[in-house]
Amino acid sequence: MYRAPVSEIAFTLKQVAGLGEVLAHQHHGEVTDDLVDAILEEAGRFAAEEIAPLNVVGDRQGARLENGTVTMPDGWRDTYRSWIDGGWNALTGTPEFGGQDLPTMLHAAALEMWNSASMAFALGPTLTMGAVEALEKHASKDLQETYLAKLISGEWMGTMNLTEPQAGSDLNALRARAERADDGTYRIFGQKIFITYGEHDFTDNIVHLVLARLPDAPAGTRGISLFLVPKFLVNADGSLGARNDVRCAGVEHKLGIHASPTCTMIYGDNDGAIGWLIGEENRGLACMFTMMNNARLAVGIQGLGVAELATQQALAYALDRRQGRAAGKTGEGMSPIAAHPDIRRTLLDMQAWTQVARAICYANAHAIDMARLAGDEAARTHWSERAATLTPLAKSFATDIGVEVASLGVQVHGGMGFIEETGAAQHYRDARIAPIYEGTNGIQAIDLVTRKLPLSGGEQFRGLIGELSAVAEAASEAGAEFADAGDRLAKALASLSDATEWMLTALADGRQQEALAGATPFLRLFGIAYGGAMLLKGALAGRGDASPDAARRLLLARYFATSRLAETASLKEQVVSAASAVLDYDPLV
Amino acid sequence: MYRAPVSEIAFTLKQVAGLGEVLAHQHHGEVTDDLVDAILEEAGRFAAEEIAPLNVVGDRQGARLENGTVTMPDGWRDTYRSWIDGGWNALTGTPEFGGQDLPTMLHAAALEMWNSASMAFALGPTLTMGAVEALEKHASKDLQETYLAKLISGEWMGTMNLTEPQAGSDLNALRARAERADDGTYRIFGQKIFITYGEHDFTDNIVHLVLARLPDAPAGTRGISLFLVPKFLVNADGSLGARNDVRCAGVEHKLGIHASPTCTMIYGDNDGAIGWLIGEENRGLACMFTMMNNARLAVGIQGLGVAELATQQALAYALDRRQGRAAGKTGEGMSPIAAHPDIRRTLLDMQAWTQVARAICYANAHAIDMARLAGDEAARTHWSERAATLTPLAKSFATDIGVEVASLGVQVHGGMGFIEETGAAQHYRDARIAPIYEGTNGIQAIDLVTRKLPLSGGEQFRGLIGELSAVAEAASEAGAEFADAGDRLAKALASLSDATEWMLTALADGRQQEALAGATPFLRLFGIAYGGAMLLKGALAGRGDASPDAARRLLLARYFATSRLAETASLKEQVVSAASAVLDYDPLV
Repeated sequence: MYRAPVSEIAFTLKQVAGLGEVLAHQHHGEVTDDLVDAILEEAGRFAAEEIAPLNVVGDRQGARLENGTVTMPDGWRDTYRSWIDGGWNALTGTPEFGGQDLPTMLHAAALEMWNSASMAFALGPTLTMGAVEALEKHASKDLQETYLAKLISGEWMGTMNLTEPQAGSDLNALRARAERADDGTYRIFGQKIFITYGEHDFTDNIVHLVLARLPDAPAGTRGISLFLVPKFLVNADGSLGARNDVRCAGVEHKLGIHASPTCTMIYGDNDGAIGWLIGEENRGLACMFTMMNNARLAVGIQGLGVAELATQQALAYALDRRQGRAAGKTGEGMSPIAAHPDIRRTLLDMQAWTQVARAICYANAHAIDMARLAGDEAARTHWSERAATLTPLAKSFATDIGVEVASLGVQVHGGMGFIEETGAAQHYRDARIAPIYEGTNGIQAIDLVTRKLPLSGGEQFRGLIGELSAVAEAASEAGAEFADAGDRLAKALASLSDATEWMLTALADGRQQEALAGATPFLRLFGIAYGGAMLLKGALAGRGDASPDAARRLLLARYFATSRLAETASLKEQVVSAASAVLDYDPLV
Repeated sequence: MYRAPVSEIAFTLKQVAGLGEVLAHQHHGEVTDDLVDAILEEAGRFAAEEIAPLNVVGDRQGARLENGTVTMPDGWRDTYRSWIDGGWNALTGTPEFGGQDLPTMLHAAALEMWNSASMAFALGPTLTMGAVEALEKHASKDLQETYLAKLISGEWMGTMNLTEPQAGSDLNALRARAERADDGTYRIFGQKIFITYGEHDFTDNIVHLVLARLPDAPAGTRGISLFLVPKFLVNADGSLGARNDVRCAGVEHKLGIHASPTCTMIYGDNDGAIGWLIGEENRGLACMFTMMNNARLAVGIQGLGVAELATQQALAYALDRRQGRAAGKTGEGMSPIAAHPDIRRTLLDMQAWTQVARAICYANAHAIDMARLAGDEAARTHWSERAATLTPLAKSFATDIGVEVASLGVQVHGGMGFIEETGAAQHYRDARIAPIYEGTNGIQAIDLVTRKLPLSGGEQFRGLIGELSAVAEAASEAGAEFADAGDRLAKALASLSDATEWMLTALADGRQQEALAGATPFLRLFGIAYGGAMLLKGALAGRGDASPDAARRLLLARYFATSRLAETASLKEQVVSAASAVLDYDPLV
């Protein structure tokens, strides 16, 4: 069972990811250190006590579709109601409509705990949050008045409707259509697939945000508009009116997150679903990207959440399960398997990867906060570029970590890991979606290399490497126990720097295909180097501290430095050398 | 759907793994090249046409237990009967009892295809094969006369009963007990778990091989005996007699291989299950190890089989699914995703890893054959040590590859990969058991480092590195298209050599714990270097050959050399440097 790692989360927020800087800049009131601790404590309590018990029953029962109605697993609706009653859905969102508008960093921390408790549960509110952001930024005052308060409180939930069978990663191929009605509304027709929480029994109404084309729209992504399509129309007094012409036609049978209803949605069986335009006609993609960027961090946090849970369970099992006798074992009986060096190595791996994912996600949240809060334009641009740079890393590297750590968790459990009742297998199944949705990890890597590396002529990224180098230097000068890790980090950053310059040159020289061929290894190289720096930063924060926590953090940084940082040289080599074979391969012949 | 890659398999057997050498030494008749091709062709046909259609229905229905009886999925029993009628179960086994005694290499190739078609199906006969080997080597003439012909034909199936709840990796803790009866038989009592194909409806009888302790046995593994316990007793005329006192009390609900019944077996509810001793009292573990070594290769082949299947499906999907427009695309419409560099890289990865797994498994089979066939004692010792060295590599590296490639296969499918109906997810679930059973991959790595590396004072392993170096040299001298890969392989082998000497020194100096801490990265280092050498060996065999197959093999070798071989330097670093942090970590405090 999940135990919320509140103190490690607080440490990472404050000592590694820069929460203090955000709190110093806050524009909206007094979020104090004490309040932060209280929120984390209470969010962790809710996660562990209320949400975590849902996870297994959710996996077993799944979301069930019958006659167009989706029934959620036993206990799920009650917990959702209790969750929104506690105000948890409203951590973010504008105060004008009841939101607490807390820093993204704090929300990220809470989201980690809810995802550890149950990824399928935390996913629904994540979509609602995205809808709130899109409405706050792009919707008319009328639409905001009608929908925002209920979405922020969680009384209603929101969805994102992008994908169609022929249009997944490539939204150019979108076919859903919208027709203008005389009263200024629109009629929406078409089929959408893979719609997360498209239908459920948590709330009385569901607010669908739907991408569709107007009849006279230009081809491609410049001809896509965004519409708000409520499941039930809303009367002037806010009460629910007629059922809209939208229905759930199917729920997917998935590898994992069984309790999250992944729906096929049909719009316009009859006269068309009534929709309201969000933003301007043909500018829908820009509105949708508002949702998607934060959703990408939220998906990265799913990887983090699953990794934390899998690590906790593997450690508990390894301490409990006895097999063999470890070196130095005295007395009768067998040793806990955690005493064997190969299992210790595996547990260190799991802990280090999880902490790396946490540091990356929180740093991304920090940049998002700073981009909003920083005092001057230049600083806001800097942080906005930093957020843009870290988002593909958080989305893809943390989700790769989720899968890897969940798989190691199965392995630590031995044969029991393959038995569903143990629970380790569920994480392995649940985690597997996160590298896929919200832009596959391959697309994230392409985004990083082709759009983010060139920001400010490469200076944004070079500046980031410079900050990481400062950590390496500090470690190298911090005494014997830090020096080796510092030296190894410096080498890793040299590899990152070499690969970065190679990429920037390739892009500048028009060798785009070569850059694309190396995008995924480049992203991994970035993630490992960044992660190693963050672990070391955390360890340095405990310099001179004799506590077990400080010792553990130093150990993780040393382990990661000696086991993972050397991989960066290999990845750099792959970036600069493998493109030739990749591009010589033509699977189409 | 699966298509048997017969020509690639034949190529790997003959040009990479040394089948010619085995055929030249064969002691038992005329296995010609033509016969080899005919057997591969026919085994592949049976796999693709008869077995492959079982795989999805097996996953959906699973093996179902009711009142102690296990019903296999629809169509499974008929196909099994048709499989044994075709003589496929008798490829191995002594001719005295109807076996064809074909080389292990040929059996490995057939087993790959059956596992690709359905891992859950191929697993049952693998266990029977293990029982046959144990009986051939250790059982009395009487037991052989009674059981071998029926097990070799497949009319009856066999099982291995080792694990108990408290005794998994550590058989010291075994508690099942055996009592001597007056008639020379034994009475067996106890509970066994995780018994693969412990109960099913394929055959009229099931022959359980069971580890248990005699009352006066020494403690630990020196006090374990092996017994044959048939489900039904066998009359003197070979007909089936009374039901023995053994039953299936449960079938596990597993992550994958749902159709393989994983049973809890209860021996001796009443007066004890009647058992016959195999080999000598208290020497049961030695007999069991006869089964386990070949079973380890067979599990490695499961990883290979799943990797091949996942690769085929991902490639087919990537050629079919269209999204986006690749560079150079002309005309209307979208490109197959296989045209995008990141997907091409992924497909190359999957193909290269699969071929590496194939080469390693077949080379292991080659060594097993040569250990039996070689003319003189020294050669047999050499090959026996080689087989012992390659077995943990085949078991663990090929199964890690199975998981990795299956996961990449899900990723290539995008959102569809997470939908169970697509089929990619099943491979990801099925593959996950192989790194666990038959000795976890961690235990394989420990076996490699502590038992296999020191064989002949390390000369066996040094000799192996020398053979791989000859491949690197040949490539470096084979012209421009091979030279770079040859140079990269030489560097990788230098890393392998350095890590090997470090390990041997650590063991010699009594730093056993340090060696154990680095065992898993060492095994991966060995696998990558070995795999890179085998890909290059295959490519060199096509030197001067203008065929597409030869070009593809060179491309895979180049890709692997530029993308994976550099990882060896990082792994060497991990072997020699990470032990300090691993051993400083004490999860018990």
